[in-house]
Amino acid sequence: MHKVTHRRIAGRAQVPLGSLTYYFSGLEDILEAAFSWYVETMAGTYQELLQAAGTAEETVEALVQFIHRAARDPERMRVLFELYSYAQYNEAASEIVRGWMTTTERHLLDRFPPGAATAIDAFVEGLLVRQAMQNDEIPEAVVRSSLRALAGPSAGVHS
Amino acid sequence: MHKVTHRRIAGRAQVPLGSLTYYFSGLEDILEAAFSWYVETMAGTYQELLQAAGTAEETVEALVQFIHRAARDPERMRVLFELYSYAQYNEAASEIVRGWMTTTERHLLDRFPPGAATAIDAFVEGLLVRQAMQNDEIPEAVVRSSLRALAGPSAGVHS
Repeated sequence: MHKVTHRRIAGRAQVPLGSLTYYFSGLEDILEAAFSWYVETMAGTYQELLQAAGTAEETVEALVQFIHRAARDPERMRVLFELYSYAQYNEAASEIVRGWMTTTERHLLDRFPPGAATAIDAFVEGLLVRQAMQNDEIPEAVVRSSLRALAGPSAGVHS
Repeated sequence: MHKVTHRRIAGRAQVPLGSLTYYFSGLEDILEAAFSWYVETMAGTYQELLQAAGTAEETVEALVQFIHRAARDPERMRVLFELYSYAQYNEAASEIVRGWMTTTERHLLDRFPPGAATAIDAFVEGLLVRQAMQNDEIPEAVVRSSLRALAGPSAGVHS
């Protein structure tokens, strides 16, 4: 992040340097827009997968898919770490992160009891972090049986 | 992180600027030493709590304590995000992170079956991240029952 400059962004985006200073008031604005877009994309994938899932069992499968896709896209996970780090200092970025967490929590609360929803949410978060840091996918069977265990017997899934 | 300079470090540490350039070959060296010390401290707390735990049930309680303590120390968790972000670009920092993850995994593998150990490890990670980002503690009862569920019936803990 400390290597971000207007010139580099303009170079990567293949736009004139002047257009950046025209549309954005500063580097902070650009980073916020980029992180906003990033989280919207991630939330889009998440919502798409979870909206198609009706039951708790289907939701577990949707989450297994989400985690599996994330493991295939380590570059995307790296952006997550940048966002978390940036959110410590930047209020807008912090809002973006909280928005993302509210999105996932709302989806889970529709399908699981409150405690289970919170636990599953944290577990998915941890899986994303671990997979990205260790550059390795956590076996789907482990993810599936753990999600079922966290969902609990009341969710009607077989653990 | 992008605001780190020799002058600021020397100011905070109340040491002459020259002593930093004498002991460390560059900013990278200083950051690596700081992160190393940070992870050693965190690993120390973790090991201390887990070594005192003999059974799976006691290990669950030790983890509940670890997560509870972390929630009381948001500043420490912020450093974790910096470390994760920095580890994307810096090989030494990446090693430090992997070392930390190996430490926790080894402790858990002593007490739980492999799949359960991996899942519990990821869950603890996710709880730390969520607590730090949402600046709120996840209820101990939720943490405890979730850890028991992840440990599974074979671990002999009551979920």
